[in-house]
Amino acid sequence: MNAPASTIEELTAQRDRASQDHAALVARGLKLDLTRGKPSPRQLDLSNGLVDAPDSLTSADGTDLRNYGGLQGLPELRAIFSEELQVPVEQLLAAGNSSLELMHDALVFAQLGTLPGSQRRWVEEPEIAFLCPVPGYDRHFALCERFGIKMIQVPMTADGPDMDVVERLVAEDPKIKGIWCVPKYSNPDGTVYSDETVRRLAAMRTAAPDFRIFWDNAYAVHHLTDEAAEIADLLALCAEHGNPDRAFVFGSTSKITFAGGGVAFFGSSPANVEWWLSCTAKRSIGPDKINQLRHVRFLRDADGLREHMRQHAALIRPKFDAVDKILTDELGGTGLASWTKPAGGYFISLQVPEGCARAVVAKAKEAGIALTPAGATHPYGDDPTDSVIRIAPTFPDQAELEEAITGLATCVRLVGTEKLLADRQG
Amino acid sequence: MNAPASTIEELTAQRDRASQDHAALVARGLKLDLTRGKPSPRQLDLSNGLVDAPDSLTSADGTDLRNYGGLQGLPELRAIFSEELQVPVEQLLAAGNSSLELMHDALVFAQLGTLPGSQRRWVEEPEIAFLCPVPGYDRHFALCERFGIKMIQVPMTADGPDMDVVERLVAEDPKIKGIWCVPKYSNPDGTVYSDETVRRLAAMRTAAPDFRIFWDNAYAVHHLTDEAAEIADLLALCAEHGNPDRAFVFGSTSKITFAGGGVAFFGSSPANVEWWLSCTAKRSIGPDKINQLRHVRFLRDADGLREHMRQHAALIRPKFDAVDKILTDELGGTGLASWTKPAGGYFISLQVPEGCARAVVAKAKEAGIALTPAGATHPYGDDPTDSVIRIAPTFPDQAELEEAITGLATCVRLVGTEKLLADRQG
Repeated sequence: MNAPASTIEELTAQRDRASQDHAALVARGLKLDLTRGKPSPRQLDLSNGLVDAPDSLTSADGTDLRNYGGLQGLPELRAIFSEELQVPVEQLLAAGNSSLELMHDALVFAQLGTLPGSQRRWVEEPEIAFLCPVPGYDRHFALCERFGIKMIQVPMTADGPDMDVVERLVAEDPKIKGIWCVPKYSNPDGTVYSDETVRRLAAMRTAAPDFRIFWDNAYAVHHLTDEAAEIADLLALCAEHGNPDRAFVFGSTSKITFAGGGVAFFGSSPANVEWWLSCTAKRSIGPDKINQLRHVRFLRDADGLREHMRQHAALIRPKFDAVDKILTDELGGTGLASWTKPAGGYFISLQVPEGCARAVVAKAKEAGIALTPAGATHPYGDDPTDSVIRIAPTFPDQAELEEAITGLATCVRLVGTEKLLADRQG
Repeated sequence: MNAPASTIEELTAQRDRASQDHAALVARGLKLDLTRGKPSPRQLDLSNGLVDAPDSLTSADGTDLRNYGGLQGLPELRAIFSEELQVPVEQLLAAGNSSLELMHDALVFAQLGTLPGSQRRWVEEPEIAFLCPVPGYDRHFALCERFGIKMIQVPMTADGPDMDVVERLVAEDPKIKGIWCVPKYSNPDGTVYSDETVRRLAAMRTAAPDFRIFWDNAYAVHHLTDEAAEIADLLALCAEHGNPDRAFVFGSTSKITFAGGGVAFFGSSPANVEWWLSCTAKRSIGPDKINQLRHVRFLRDADGLREHMRQHAALIRPKFDAVDKILTDELGGTGLASWTKPAGGYFISLQVPEGCARAVVAKAKEAGIALTPAGATHPYGDDPTDSVIRIAPTFPDQAELEEAITGLATCVRLVGTEKLLADRQG
């Protein structure tokens, strides 16, 4: 454990050491990438059985899956994911390769058509807004930005979005049409929404009659430990509280099987599912059912899915552990950083002193360590505190990851100490 | 060859025979389906090799195709289809399972974003319209209807859309933003656009600065004979005539490999492709590259593709021939019908006397023969002449098809003769 430097002299010495360490780091000419939450090749190897030819190309009900049709997706596959996504099979649809596509399309369909409960198409509203819990997922924010949807930040707490803020905003402002949520092992904090948070989201009064929760349950089965986090059943709670059409549930196999050849899911109330199908029926004659069949054959059932995810955890838990250990060794006690220790998901959130995140990312880049741009965790790429750095530890191999995190810690020491010195001297 | 009935007595006798034949047909309790252009199980069998596990899951450039990325699609696959779709590889994108999705999304992106050449987003225009050559493809029209795009009918000729009409309309009306085209073996007439038609489409002056040709080259390689129809190169002609961004080219493998597990293509000018990628980059991190790889391994190259299509032709040409033979035997010389004899594609267009198509489809339904609804070939499902019936001969097996077409001919004889009698007596 380190101790915080306190005098100008101690800080200067610490800065000089960090500066030398950084120079040495740059000299090594590394090329390491911590930018995106991608599965590693060894994780992908776990699913190589997915490409084996299925023994038959018909579904359980005898449908020839090679031909057109089947807009709802393969019932057998929806059955496997129904429990973990907390959506009844008949309200769960299986689609193409990417749940981001489904979130995009949900926004498109609401803009160009009329949602259950909507008074008009969203394009006809003078302005619409979404609540964005921060830190959050940059691709959610990019969708809002692309469609000119105003983003209103809401702080995250240890239990999920600050519900006092959420309840107040949605009750008073009919422009607010939705909220982005990653309810389990949130991106990037790893937060698991408490039951009370989920209940309040389901029950709250909204000024907009067509308010939607975009429930991106991307890490539903992505546990790092044997204690699988469970969240409350949003769809059931919405129905129970008289808001049956409030939730859009999204999920995918991108980080379960192949990110470049998986299946995505959409689940919602019966009315929303009917509306969704009326929109997608014009767009497609059906998803790739052969790939859905491969997933059924490969995962077998919900237990097969859970066993498969335990193999992922065995590969990536040592990486999360290494990040925590190195950050503790290098930065623990210095007062220069704090970080999350998530029990699942794909990210660790590193908090550095205010005004330092961009500089740390820049220093890391000088040393050949690519990080997600500082600010990416906030709407418009602008973290007003400039203090959050998202670490994605899964993709690099163990040795590269440890090298990258050690280098990152050096950059935090350098930038953080310079900041403290400047504060003292300024 | 039959002779046309001319006297009231002959017509009455012909009507009575047809009526008896129809009653006998109904009594048989058939259950036959000619509604949609679906490949038959034997056609799908041709592609069963598609599901064999690829020997490697990396692309030619070493990319791990199991992971995220590669928004443009696999270069090797785009190379296979570049020649037949007449789009340079670098301007051709490979996507998911359905080209209809890409046409839908093109309309979405133009409505919610700003196309190259657009003065504003299409949702901001008071009204927009598309030209719809008729008869045409019902799913194109359904997309326009869904988005409130006005449809303006243009008659088809033996050379494609009536270009005198097209040129006049697009020159005077800036509301007209596009035209639907199936340029080779059109749905449902089987028309191949002449070189002069393609040239005029590329060269014509349009009042809208952001006019687009939706070039649905669905049957680019779907020849029924050894003489492969060739059409002029629309993209090249657009560039040559100073309208480089006018064409959106669509294609897919739906009727080449698996309709329920294929790959779709989008091709256009460099500026349009850049715009397309800027839109899709927000929507997806990449298409299913594993399925694209399967297509590369299975089809091998452009020659492999052409050889594969010859196997399809060997299976479906006898079906097209049988339809022509039965219609000739049953209706030839009666003056009650005419029909197309396409050299490729998926459809035969049957022309019955004005005001008879709906009644024929209804009579066929009574006999258990399902046909595409009369009117489906026209916007809003409304064929003002009520005379066009689309026949989709590929899906049923040969015996069922022959039974269905014989039954259909009976219905045409019955309804057509009743019409002639009513005209005489009325």
